[in-house]
Amino acid sequence: MEKISRTKIVDLLKRDDFGAKVNVKGWVRTRRGSKQVNFIALNDGSTINNVQIVVDLASFDEEMLKQITTGACLSVNGEMVESVGSGQKVEVQAREIEVLGICDNTYPLQKKGHSMEFLREIAHLRPRTNTFGAVFRIRHHMAIAIHKFFHERGFYYFHTPIITASDAEGAGQMFQVTTLDMRHLGRTEDGAVKYDDDFFGKQASLTVSGQLEGELAATALGAIYTFGPTFRAENSNTPRHLAEFWMIEPEVAFNDITDNMDLAEEFIKYCVQWALDNCADDVKFLNDMFDKGLVERLQGVLKDDFVRLSYTEGIKILESAVANGRKFEFPVYWGVDLASEHERYLVEEHFKRPVILTDYPKEIKAFYMKQNEDGKTVRAMDVLFPKIGEIIGGSEREADYEKLQSRIDELHIPMKDMWWYLDTRKFGTCPHSGFGLGFERLLLFVTGMANIRDVIPFPRTPRNAEF
Amino acid sequence: MEKISRTKIVDLLKRDDFGAKVNVKGWVRTRRGSKQVNFIALNDGSTINNVQIVVDLASFDEEMLKQITTGACLSVNGEMVESVGSGQKVEVQAREIEVLGICDNTYPLQKKGHSMEFLREIAHLRPRTNTFGAVFRIRHHMAIAIHKFFHERGFYYFHTPIITASDAEGAGQMFQVTTLDMRHLGRTEDGAVKYDDDFFGKQASLTVSGQLEGELAATALGAIYTFGPTFRAENSNTPRHLAEFWMIEPEVAFNDITDNMDLAEEFIKYCVQWALDNCADDVKFLNDMFDKGLVERLQGVLKDDFVRLSYTEGIKILESAVANGRKFEFPVYWGVDLASEHERYLVEEHFKRPVILTDYPKEIKAFYMKQNEDGKTVRAMDVLFPKIGEIIGGSEREADYEKLQSRIDELHIPMKDMWWYLDTRKFGTCPHSGFGLGFERLLLFVTGMANIRDVIPFPRTPRNAEF
Repeated sequence: MEKISRTKIVDLLKRDDFGAKVNVKGWVRTRRGSKQVNFIALNDGSTINNVQIVVDLASFDEEMLKQITTGACLSVNGEMVESVGSGQKVEVQAREIEVLGICDNTYPLQKKGHSMEFLREIAHLRPRTNTFGAVFRIRHHMAIAIHKFFHERGFYYFHTPIITASDAEGAGQMFQVTTLDMRHLGRTEDGAVKYDDDFFGKQASLTVSGQLEGELAATALGAIYTFGPTFRAENSNTPRHLAEFWMIEPEVAFNDITDNMDLAEEFIKYCVQWALDNCADDVKFLNDMFDKGLVERLQGVLKDDFVRLSYTEGIKILESAVANGRKFEFPVYWGVDLASEHERYLVEEHFKRPVILTDYPKEIKAFYMKQNEDGKTVRAMDVLFPKIGEIIGGSEREADYEKLQSRIDELHIPMKDMWWYLDTRKFGTCPHSGFGLGFERLLLFVTGMANIRDVIPFPRTPRNAEF
Repeated sequence: MEKISRTKIVDLLKRDDFGAKVNVKGWVRTRRGSKQVNFIALNDGSTINNVQIVVDLASFDEEMLKQITTGACLSVNGEMVESVGSGQKVEVQAREIEVLGICDNTYPLQKKGHSMEFLREIAHLRPRTNTFGAVFRIRHHMAIAIHKFFHERGFYYFHTPIITASDAEGAGQMFQVTTLDMRHLGRTEDGAVKYDDDFFGKQASLTVSGQLEGELAATALGAIYTFGPTFRAENSNTPRHLAEFWMIEPEVAFNDITDNMDLAEEFIKYCVQWALDNCADDVKFLNDMFDKGLVERLQGVLKDDFVRLSYTEGIKILESAVANGRKFEFPVYWGVDLASEHERYLVEEHFKRPVILTDYPKEIKAFYMKQNEDGKTVRAMDVLFPKIGEIIGGSEREADYEKLQSRIDELHIPMKDMWWYLDTRKFGTCPHSGFGLGFERLLLFVTGMANIRDVIPFPRTPRNAEF
């Protein structure tokens, strides 16, 4: 076969130098046609769009033609011609075809219309489908948007540790990390596991959040963000929970709660705008196939300023809705941790736009949040989104050493895990704020997917760590 | 204090609108001066450069002035004036000073000249030093360069799993991940640990490489890269080993070994060029303080094409060096896994530039590498760098189902871990290639640091998982 340098399909479909000799490589999505002419839809993953390959059957070897089945991998030399029927401007009139990889009829992606459950079982192949190709290209683009957003604003990307010996954040149950031989565990004299023999010389776990270490960095480099995997060992088999997920946590010295809200709003709008600008074909596909309101919902959050109101005001709105006959599954009263139905009522029914709720009761929020002067609330903020509920959670941090110390004592958090964190308040403390965004929550919003297992390549959930 | 919006020091030092009223915030690095005037070097982490704050002592409260000690956090309103003596073009004549956070003399970073060992013990504070500020800003920039390089070339960032139930890659010893209660382990009838009760229903570990899953993605999306944490539970207490480190692994459908070498060379040159272009102040600081040859070495790798030669030719060169009296600690013969001293001889003494060594004996390389026709070697490639030795390792992958299957059998790799990987060769297989770059290896090269524990914020090593 003549050696012609390969053109990616995403680039080929933008060209208009018809008549050019090109080479394309990719996988057969469909093949159809008559006894004289066949049309192959070829995809190489660079875009959701296929290029149509036109094959005059008489010019090719019959045995080779038999191998052109769904899923087979081809290299095609041909002429770029203007297309009338393929849905694209460009198609390729094949001159030479090489079958790089055959694909027999045991291929699980032969036919269309597989259930999402089935595709999860073949997660090693599902990126080859239109749906998951679109989702994972959007996932890439959201990651790029996040790095670009923070880099352009002078934030430094900071790698907080994955393995940790402290469990102070208390955000959830943790996975233990060990090299001990569990068949023959050493014991101390009082019968406890002898962690002195373990790799780190003590009990170690997978991180649930990089925030505390992020604060160390922010009080040195000024403005940082993390973007890495985090873990929860909760036995939650729901469409919203993963045992392993990615989180973004910016932390900024000298930002107060208002700066923090401004940053969160600007940040998430930037990401959504990026998806509309850079993933138009993929977003449109998901809109048309799964979620007819997707594009409208994305445009919707960009239109207006987010509503900002206090938890206390939010409770009042919910209470008056209840008084007017609105039914909720869970009760509403000051002090309650809002359920998703409450958050979505505020966003979808009452205000009809995203809401940033602030100043939550301190009992339902983490120890490190800045205490308000009322003695009851803390300077927390949650960003609530349509369909998703809470998409971002953050706060101004308690910068006062004494106040932080006494909250740590109240909650009986062991000081062995806290001395280094308290040092930031002891040595040149400063006001600072930050928040966390669950990457997969963002992706649920941007792709319109209904199950969080479908926006991460290889979901880890109870009893599932395949591939 | 008057409310003036804050200017970051990195931005302030570029301005020339002298006379402007500004606010700067940051931490005191040094304070010196006379009875009338004091000079405070203030740093906010945005740059290695301090801004000089000029303080006419008579205009300020004495008690407040006493709190301006090394490490204290200040907010300063003042006038931007042209500087003659501060080493910068700009300084700030203070009008108002607020001490946001005091810092007493127990602060461990009072004096300069701490050992790297001591700074590792206070890893929670070391980002506040010039050295680690520089290193972690460069770390950020290298991450950004990596994402930019691949994004611009149409690669998709792909998150491979961190927790895995397969250990097929065989790259090293693994950490086990579990939620079992180790004090009361359930046993099966034959006395084994009852992993059925574990979170994932089976034994699970931390990933040693995302490559195999990366190949799944490349054979769907075309060109992908990973950038995430990887883990090795090896008991290696050396300046080159970490138990937790970050790795970048691109994988490209339709690339052969030559394309792979081209990509690796272009990639690493892009990163080094980025450091020279975007981290000039930080690189210069590290050059002057730690490693006088740093800038020259960085420029050196950009100058020429990398040498490309086969392992067999490399062995010949080493053997003739030995014949001419060159001493090595480890023996040289065809079939040996090259030691760092051998790699560095080729790079630093023989060729005096980076070398890409290819076509290694199959016995010393992984099972998935494409077998050459000689039956003895595989299409591996290692990129060898001055001072570092191997910085990148990669290969063209074996695309042939039968050959790959028989190599898996030869090495007794359990098929329970391999069926999904083999499916890529069964269904539309394609030639493809990829490589891995240890992020901290790159950082050792770009920063000139001597110990890998000093290029990651919180190093994890045997008996060490602090912070």
